[in-house]
Amino acid sequence: MEFSSKLLEKAVNEMSQLPGVGKRTALRLVLHLLRQPESQTVQLAQALLNMRTEIKFCKSCNNISDNVLCEICANPRRQEEIICVVEDIRDVMAIENTSSFKGLYHVLGGKISPMDGIGPHDLNINPLVNKIKEGRVKELIFALSPTMEGDTTNFYIFKQIQDLDVVTSTIARGISIGDELEYADEVTLGRSILNRIPFEGSLKS
Amino acid sequence: MEFSSKLLEKAVNEMSQLPGVGKRTALRLVLHLLRQPESQTVQLAQALLNMRTEIKFCKSCNNISDNVLCEICANPRRQEEIICVVEDIRDVMAIENTSSFKGLYHVLGGKISPMDGIGPHDLNINPLVNKIKEGRVKELIFALSPTMEGDTTNFYIFKQIQDLDVVTSTIARGISIGDELEYADEVTLGRSILNRIPFEGSLKS
Ligand SMILES: [Zn+2]
Ligand SMILES: [Zn+2]
Repeated sequence: MEFSSKLLEKAVNEMSQLPGVGKRTALRLVLHLLRQPESQTVQLAQALLNMRTEIKFCKSCNNISDNVLCEICANPRRQEEIICVVEDIRDVMAIENTSSFKGLYHVLGGKISPMDGIGPHDLNINPLVNKIKEGRVKELIFALSPTMEGDTTNFYIFKQIQDLDVVTSTIARGISIGDELEYADEVTLGRSILNRIPFEGSLKS
Repeated sequence: MEFSSKLLEKAVNEMSQLPGVGKRTALRLVLHLLRQPESQTVQLAQALLNMRTEIKFCKSCNNISDNVLCEICANPRRQEEIICVVEDIRDVMAIENTSSFKGLYHVLGGKISPMDGIGPHDLNINPLVNKIKEGRVKELIFALSPTMEGDTTNFYIFKQIQDLDVVTSTIARGISIGDELEYADEVTLGRSILNRIPFEGSLKS
């Protein structure tokens, strides 16, 4: 791509560093900013800078936060004896959106993935184990993606805490509500039969 | 979407102002920046700010430029008697990439579109007409998109200059090279038959 302006070229190159943003998309976005009032670009740049330089991670759960403790950990109405283990902050947001969980979270910051060179020590696992050793956590819910990496990570954590006095569970895996059975993948369908729940239980949801 | 951080929320909101970037995509991009070194965000923000506040438009052709005249207009080896009229700077880049044109450009900054409230006076048309009245331009090539708006714009400009001593042409419209004939749209196919070219001529390209 030939640019008639070094300023434009630099902006497109920086923008195309973002995942999923190719050079053509970056050019389209940057030209859009040129057509908008200058204030829009100033606000975008300032918001990104402020976020990157000032954002904190909750000292307790590793969730993104503007303070030492995130709003969830700091909320006295949340049940601190139940902890839901998630991969990243998007999972916290997704579960919060369902309004179905009133405990606290623990954000690992990823999952064990030898293929990507991510081992247990690259993740926020030790603070979780220590939290459980303190004895106030009664239940740990694994809410990682049902993938090989997710399962590996669940199992790694489980081994560290299996002798401690804490109940562990994983989120239910099965056919998505509203999905046609015939289109479900085999593994999900198979597991949903093996892990069937009492019919009365299914009425409560 | 519930955010655990106002800084994060502001960054996602600003990012999602960009065309085609929804809240979920904006969140993904912003979280990516959080995982990268701070320098990446600083450079992105700075590049966008510099571009937006310092970029110029070529005094002659309205192309994006770092100087009063763009690199193309300032290049003494370009043929200044041939002007290619385009909608925006991306078209200049696309044509430059083909290395098939050695004249100059004139960037209109859009096309006439009553539906979008864009009239001739919102576009960079008068400077083009004045340039032609000066008498040094021998050929004007219309290279707008072959749409109703593009055709309207071509015709509007053509009417202003038809009595002046300048040859006008439009870029060839037809079946894209490599396309299967059966999948071409009817209008393109019909025009490609009406505007057929001598067989010897087709061998040259
Ligand atoms: Zn927290
Ligand atoms: Zn120029």
